[in-house]
Amino acid sequence: MEFEVYQTGAEGGRRAEMRLPHHAVQTPVFMPVGTAGTVKAVPQESLEALGAEIILGNTYHLYLRPGHEVVRRMGGLHKFMSWPRAMLTDSGGFQVFSLSGLRKMSEEGVEFRSHLDGSKHFFSPEHSIEVQIALGADILMAFDECMEYPAEEARARESMELTLRWARRSKAHFESLAGEVPWQVELGGATQNLFGIVQGGMHKHLRKECAERLVEMDFAGYAIGGLSVGEPQELTEDMVAETLQYLPKDKPRYVMGVGYPEEIVKFARMGVDMMDCVLPTRAARHGLLFTSEGRLNIKNKQFAEDQGPVDPACKCMVCARYTRAYLRHLMVAQEPLSGTLNTLHNLAYYLGLMEGVRAELAVG
Amino acid sequence: MEFEVYQTGAEGGRRAEMRLPHHAVQTPVFMPVGTAGTVKAVPQESLEALGAEIILGNTYHLYLRPGHEVVRRMGGLHKFMSWPRAMLTDSGGFQVFSLSGLRKMSEEGVEFRSHLDGSKHFFSPEHSIEVQIALGADILMAFDECMEYPAEEARARESMELTLRWARRSKAHFESLAGEVPWQVELGGATQNLFGIVQGGMHKHLRKECAERLVEMDFAGYAIGGLSVGEPQELTEDMVAETLQYLPKDKPRYVMGVGYPEEIVKFARMGVDMMDCVLPTRAARHGLLFTSEGRLNIKNKQFAEDQGPVDPACKCMVCARYTRAYLRHLMVAQEPLSGTLNTLHNLAYYLGLMEGVRAELAVG
Repeated sequence: MEFEVYQTGAEGGRRAEMRLPHHAVQTPVFMPVGTAGTVKAVPQESLEALGAEIILGNTYHLYLRPGHEVVRRMGGLHKFMSWPRAMLTDSGGFQVFSLSGLRKMSEEGVEFRSHLDGSKHFFSPEHSIEVQIALGADILMAFDECMEYPAEEARARESMELTLRWARRSKAHFESLAGEVPWQVELGGATQNLFGIVQGGMHKHLRKECAERLVEMDFAGYAIGGLSVGEPQELTEDMVAETLQYLPKDKPRYVMGVGYPEEIVKFARMGVDMMDCVLPTRAARHGLLFTSEGRLNIKNKQFAEDQGPVDPACKCMVCARYTRAYLRHLMVAQEPLSGTLNTLHNLAYYLGLMEGVRAELAVG
Repeated sequence: MEFEVYQTGAEGGRRAEMRLPHHAVQTPVFMPVGTAGTVKAVPQESLEALGAEIILGNTYHLYLRPGHEVVRRMGGLHKFMSWPRAMLTDSGGFQVFSLSGLRKMSEEGVEFRSHLDGSKHFFSPEHSIEVQIALGADILMAFDECMEYPAEEARARESMELTLRWARRSKAHFESLAGEVPWQVELGGATQNLFGIVQGGMHKHLRKECAERLVEMDFAGYAIGGLSVGEPQELTEDMVAETLQYLPKDKPRYVMGVGYPEEIVKFARMGVDMMDCVLPTRAARHGLLFTSEGRLNIKNKQFAEDQGPVDPACKCMVCARYTRAYLRHLMVAQEPLSGTLNTLHNLAYYLGLMEGVRAELAVG
C-alpha cells in the first residue's frame, strides 16, 4: 500500500492519499460504518454520491450472517454489497468483547455465543484473519483485546501483552495466507493490508510501549484502539496525542470508534488519518442531527412547521430538498424514509467536515 | 382539467394525457401509494427517477398526522413532501370504514376513533372535501360509503343511494370552496379536480344506475370503488367491464385499489386510465418481488448465493446493481435498506408494465 503525504499542518495533521486495491482514499477521512454489509438505511448509490471513499464492515456480524464463506463465494464483500470503493473490516474483537456474559477468554482466543441464536463460536487471531480474508476488505485489523474501562496498570499491562502476542499471531497468519483474498487475481495480484492496534488503557507509558513494539513488527498502518470507552474527552485526546508520537509518519494512523464532530476535526488536525464511528448513522436513526449551528433533535415539536432545511449551510441532497417540518413528520410517523434522510444528512455533515480539514491542510 | 385521448385500442384501452395543475400525466397510469406523505421507504428523488408521474396520499392518515391544517400552512402536500408532479388524495372513506368497531355511521357522516390514540373524530362529505382542499392534491375524491362484501341487493342499493347523496354534497361543497387550495394563486388560478365514485356492490344494474346518476352530476373524472374487497377476480373484472360502458369516453376512469400485475394490464387494455394499489409497496416490504418470470419471495434460502438480479429482464437501478443474494441477506438481517430496494424494484416493475401498455396502445 502506498501512502503519500502531500502536506503536513502546524499541529501535525497530514493531507495525504492512501492507495488501496479498490480506491485511492483522500485523507484525513471519516469512514461510515456498514455493520452488516450496509450502511443502515442508505443505498450504495447514495454513499457514492455523498463522496464516501471508504466504509467499514463488521467481521463479527458478517461472520454470523450471511457467513464469511457465503461472502467469499460471492466474490468478497465488495461484490456482495456492490461497493466499488475502499473498505476496512474490524477484527471482530470489539463486538465479541461487548458480549459480556456470553464470552470466555483464553490465551488462545475468545469463545462466545451469538447474539442472534445463542450458538457457540470461537475467535482466535488466526480465525479472525481467515474471516477477514474471506470478506476481502482492502484493510483488515489484527485481533486485539478490547479492555474494560477503567483498568489499573497491572490489568492494562497484562491486556496489552496479550494484544501484542495476538498481533504477532495475526500478522504471521495473514502472511501465511497472502494470496487467498477473493479478488487477488482480478486486481492483478494486489493484496489486503493489515493494521496493528495500539492498546494500553489510559496509561501513557503503556501506550508508548505498545506503539513501539507494534512498529517493530511492521504493519501497513496503525490504529489506536480502546478509546471512547467511557473516559473523559480530555483523556481520549491525551492518549491520542501521546500515541501519535510513536507511530511512523509514513504510515496511516487510525483512531477507532470516534467521535463527535469537534473530536474528529481535532484529531485530524493532530495527525490522525482515519476515523470511524456509528455516531452519525445511529444518532440519525434516533433523530439527532448534526449541523453547522449545533445539534438538533428533529422530533422536537418546535420543528413541526419549520420550513427551513436541517442546516442552512449544508449542500446535501436532504437540505436541498426537504424541510425540518417534513423530516419531523417522518420521524414522528416512524416512516422508514426518516432513517434514510436523517442518515444521509449526518453523513454529509461528517464527510463535509473532513473535506474542510483536508482543504485546510492542503494549503499547509 | 384537459384529458386528451390520443388512441383507442381494440378492447377499449386509451392512450391519453391527463393535464393536471402540477403535471401532465401519461395514461394508463399506475399510482404508487404514499399513505402518510411518503411512499414508504423511497425518497422522492428515486420516485422521480423511476418515472412515477402521480402518487396517492391518504386523507385519513394525513388528517390525523401531521394534520391537514399543518399541511395547509406548509403550502399543501406537494410542498410539504417536496413532490413536484401530480398527486391524488382519497376521501378518507375507505380507511374510516376499515376501522370496524371504532366507527358510527349516520346520514350526516361517520364518527370514528383514531387508530393512533383513540381520540374521537367526525368525517362528513363536507369535512372530507375541506381536508382534501387543505392537502391540495391535483385530484380529490368524493366521500363515499365503502360497503362490506358480500351485500344483498337491498343493502347495496341503500348504500349506493347514500353514496350518491354524499357525492352531491361533496361536489356542492367543493364548488363553494373553489379557490381555497393552497397553491391556487401560485399556479395562475388552476384548481383541483373532483372525481365521483361508482358504488353498487356486485350488482350490475346498480353499477349502471350509479354511474349514470353520477355522470349527470358531472365530475372531472370517475372512479370505480368497492372492488377488490374479497370477491373472486372474475367478478371484479365483470363489474369493471359493466361500469366502464356507462362512463364518458372523454373523462378519466379510475379503478381504486387494484391490483396484481396481470389485473392492472388487463384493466388498462379495457379502458381504465388510472389505478392504485398498496400491493407492490407493501409486498416489497415483506419480500415478495414481482418479475417478468413470476413472483419470488426473496427471503427463500434458495436465493442465499444467487448472484443474478431479481429480474434479468428488468432495467431498474436495483436489478442493475444488486444480486438476489444481497437482497436476501438484507431481508433476513432486517436491514432498512431491504424495504427501500425491494420497493424500488416492485414499483419499477409496475410502472414498467403500464409503460408497456401505453406503448402498445399508442400504435393502436
